[in-house]
Amino acid sequence: MSTGTALPGEPVDNESIARKFGTDANWAEAFIGTRQRHFAVDLNTGQVTHTLADLGAQACAQAMARADLEPRDVDFLVLGTSSPDALMPATVNLIADRLGIDQVSTYQLQSGCAGALQALDLACRLLDEEHLIGVVVGADVCVKHLVLDQKTNSVRPASHVLFGDGAGAAVLASELVPGSIAVRRVLNRYSGLSRTPGQVVRWFGAADLTQPEQPVEQDHKAIAQRVPLLARQAMREVLGMAGWYQASVSYLLPPQLSGRLPQRVANALGLTDVTEISCVADVGNAGNALPFFQLDRLHDRIVAEERAIAIAIEPSKWIKTAVALEGM
Amino acid sequence: MSTGTALPGEPVDNESIARKFGTDANWAEAFIGTRQRHFAVDLNTGQVTHTLADLGAQACAQAMARADLEPRDVDFLVLGTSSPDALMPATVNLIADRLGIDQVSTYQLQSGCAGALQALDLACRLLDEEHLIGVVVGADVCVKHLVLDQKTNSVRPASHVLFGDGAGAAVLASELVPGSIAVRRVLNRYSGLSRTPGQVVRWFGAADLTQPEQPVEQDHKAIAQRVPLLARQAMREVLGMAGWYQASVSYLLPPQLSGRLPQRVANALGLTDVTEISCVADVGNAGNALPFFQLDRLHDRIVAEERAIAIAIEPSKWIKTAVALEGM
Repeated sequence: MSTGTALPGEPVDNESIARKFGTDANWAEAFIGTRQRHFAVDLNTGQVTHTLADLGAQACAQAMARADLEPRDVDFLVLGTSSPDALMPATVNLIADRLGIDQVSTYQLQSGCAGALQALDLACRLLDEEHLIGVVVGADVCVKHLVLDQKTNSVRPASHVLFGDGAGAAVLASELVPGSIAVRRVLNRYSGLSRTPGQVVRWFGAADLTQPEQPVEQDHKAIAQRVPLLARQAMREVLGMAGWYQASVSYLLPPQLSGRLPQRVANALGLTDVTEISCVADVGNAGNALPFFQLDRLHDRIVAEERAIAIAIEPSKWIKTAVALEGM
Repeated sequence: MSTGTALPGEPVDNESIARKFGTDANWAEAFIGTRQRHFAVDLNTGQVTHTLADLGAQACAQAMARADLEPRDVDFLVLGTSSPDALMPATVNLIADRLGIDQVSTYQLQSGCAGALQALDLACRLLDEEHLIGVVVGADVCVKHLVLDQKTNSVRPASHVLFGDGAGAAVLASELVPGSIAVRRVLNRYSGLSRTPGQVVRWFGAADLTQPEQPVEQDHKAIAQRVPLLARQAMREVLGMAGWYQASVSYLLPPQLSGRLPQRVANALGLTDVTEISCVADVGNAGNALPFFQLDRLHDRIVAEERAIAIAIEPSKWIKTAVALEGM
């Protein structure tokens, strides 16, 4: 696995958000724990600076360059996102176009926080004797959901400090090379039967434009309660699938919903001797991009035979995902 | 493979469309070839009568009942759609909820006309010794993209006669039973390098609501020219993958973009002794649902050892898909 990442423009800190939207910078730091994020629009002018295709292609190109791959070496492309540039064409195909990729299978998963690991899951299942190399990309441009031109808006101010934009990518190959990371097992389970969604993001077609509903809703209480529980289940289940003891794991890549949550999850998991790898405090909740940022950091640290577990929980309709990784 | 379908409400004919939107009913019949379609809203009141989750769950439930399956028998669920109810939660998870399915992998592909066959492709690759049974559903509620409350609107009138709403589903099992259909090979290739999209459907988040662009654009000329060509390529390639001669194929399920196109494609393919199975004239272009309607009709006709080829071409960014099917 080689990785690549992309962030739009300069980081935006809590003071800048506070000035623009009237939120409280100290509250954001203390309760959300996210210090900065990047946005795909210029907050001052409202001008879109980066599309999802821009960010996704940039992250893929970096991952492909690090793996020394040409476009013709890629056998399939998978994108996980909750915020496509348009409903059609699927953004994964615009990314393929930018990369010079043609005549391969492309898949775009509509997904939230769990999407990156769902995309990894899918890619692992797609690798076979005919499909030797795949590129997986997670990307989100969350800023599309935020109303930027007013201080009193219909979106809760928490959304402005929670979310961020970005993309991350990984090259997966059926043949493992030394110095890379092997994906050992992926857990990917919908776990929301009869439960109210913890997160809803609506979209609007032409027919809906006149009376838009609240575009983003989050049940912060349910998220704080339920995510550590689902993370504990995911940890136990993926360890069982891999046949690993918890004590053999060196790195934990916990869910990245907000800057405060990773620590709460680590506490709930009762892990002591693991190194936590989180980046949400620096890039905000960039949805499908985040696990790839964590993998990118893990890549620089993990050595042969070291083990890592990445967990992503999607509160939208409660999806638990986890991946067991090993240094090569 | 067992199949199921769902259509919202009563069929809407070209005369009703003409009265409501000022289009020409005779032109629709002559040039588009679509006689009727179903809509998930009441055209008179604008009231939404069916969500994508409603239609998808109904089609899945029928396919599962025909295969005599309980929710706990299902190992994964795949939805292909271009028009999710919301960006999050993914509609596939709302469908799982309605069906009583939990603790399985769910995938939602963001896709247009090729999505049903991409979802079938994915499901075939997911079936293994741990995942014995999967449900695949294609569904679209295209009416979301149409402006319904005015005669002079920003959407070309062709959209109102072309599109329709509906859902179709298929149960796929790794163990084949007599009387069912076996999926022999699936072709799924992005083929749009450096080509302008033939179809664009935009979506709108909160930040975009003030200045919406044209929500639906189609390059009808490029579609008419390029779809028969890509269909010919797809036919040749999938026959090669399956190792079949064209003369051994009894049924053709051609692309269903409009009522007139299937015949043009059949002509371009130069097929003589095959039975064409099309339903776009009766249900409109219901996107991801359409190939499942064709499969549903095929299911009633195909007998053991008979062969069929289904082709779907997505003009958004030019994706060719085809599937080789055999009666069991």
